[in-house]
Amino acid sequence: MRTCPDTAVSPSGNRKASRAARTRERILQTSLDLFNTHGEAHVTTGHIADELNISPGNLYYHFRNKGEIIRHLFGAFEARVDAAPSLSGEDFADAGTSLENLWLYLHLMFEGIRDYRFLYRNLDDLLMRDTKLRMQFRRILDHKRSAVSALCQSLARGGAMRASAAEIALLADNVLLVATYWLNFDHLAANAFATHDAADNTDLGRGVYQVMALIAPYLTEGSREHLEHISRQYLGD
Amino acid sequence: MRTCPDTAVSPSGNRKASRAARTRERILQTSLDLFNTHGEAHVTTGHIADELNISPGNLYYHFRNKGEIIRHLFGAFEARVDAAPSLSGEDFADAGTSLENLWLYLHLMFEGIRDYRFLYRNLDDLLMRDTKLRMQFRRILDHKRSAVSALCQSLARGGAMRASAAEIALLADNVLLVATYWLNFDHLAANAFATHDAADNTDLGRGVYQVMALIAPYLTEGSREHLEHISRQYLGD
Repeated sequence: MRTCPDTAVSPSGNRKASRAARTRERILQTSLDLFNTHGEAHVTTGHIADELNISPGNLYYHFRNKGEIIRHLFGAFEARVDAAPSLSGEDFADAGTSLENLWLYLHLMFEGIRDYRFLYRNLDDLLMRDTKLRMQFRRILDHKRSAVSALCQSLARGGAMRASAAEIALLADNVLLVATYWLNFDHLAANAFATHDAADNTDLGRGVYQVMALIAPYLTEGSREHLEHISRQYLGD
Repeated sequence: MRTCPDTAVSPSGNRKASRAARTRERILQTSLDLFNTHGEAHVTTGHIADELNISPGNLYYHFRNKGEIIRHLFGAFEARVDAAPSLSGEDFADAGTSLENLWLYLHLMFEGIRDYRFLYRNLDDLLMRDTKLRMQFRRILDHKRSAVSALCQSLARGGAMRASAAEIALLADNVLLVATYWLNFDHLAANAFATHDAADNTDLGRGVYQVMALIAPYLTEGSREHLEHISRQYLGD
């Protein structure tokens, strides 16, 4: 049991507590940046402390080890991407809104993946090492699968999509798979692979477009045109 | 420059040369098994020598380091999966054969990925470390993209598929992406993830089915029925 002088209840104690919270936050942010830039495997707690100009002891006071930092970042990622999508609800006629909701949902998912991309590089390795993370990741996938299915069902109800329940189930899995691995695949296939730099908005747009290409053939004529319209606006060409 | 007494031209030299070739082959096979079972990152040349009951010196005589073993395995993988698919050629009417060729092509691709699955776990990490491997992998992807496009064009020419050139290009990328990451994704999403065991034929079948689900919506009515027929035979349900 570690004791923490920062938690004493006094004006100076409060200041210390808030300083501790800020240090903790800075450790998480710096770790995220370093992991994203260099790959998690190549960053030690020593590097993180160096970058922050704090002692390793100070870092260990906040996080017992690198694994604990990763688990916290994973929790932050989950909070970020686990939001439910907007559904058009009872407004069956509004297929356009459903399509735009789906696009927005995918865009936010890709943004989350980009900002925490160290998790997605070497995902298997990371999840093999930590049962809790594995359960957490599987939970995220389950929620996303439900969300994508619900969005497709909303499109089908609105008459914008023609797909059976079985087709929507296969489609939702492919949407998740492509979204999960798009950034990795894009880096493998492109010359940009040499760096771990952030994907820019064009890359994200291409990712969303690639996922929407899975959905497009199930859309009815008018909705497919609407999708092309949204795509052109979004990709700016 | 290493000199190799095994290459001397004499009857006993020939025996030695063939023994050296066998040792080399055994090193590659054992490395592949260990990498697949434990993950490449957790296997050292020491483990490989131990498993083969040979001295580390003997191993180093054949391969300078683990990276050289990996490059050889990658070459074997490339030779295995880089075969061009059968095309129905001028026989435009035979859409059934085109579909079966596509299925077979995907099945062989998935078998290759399964047998060399250590390459596909932590693919990014592996390719980040080695420029030559990266170029090689990109070449494999390019060939596969061309092959899948050619198969789709053959389906379209035969009247079995309705898809524009732009749609086929997006489709080919999604086929490659799903095929590349299917085993990883399946392991992430399923309980089987805890082990690195070989995917069995059911898993491969589900993988091929998942990829075919990308193609199905572009097929004309009759071909979609034919695909369902092949799927049932193949998956045995």
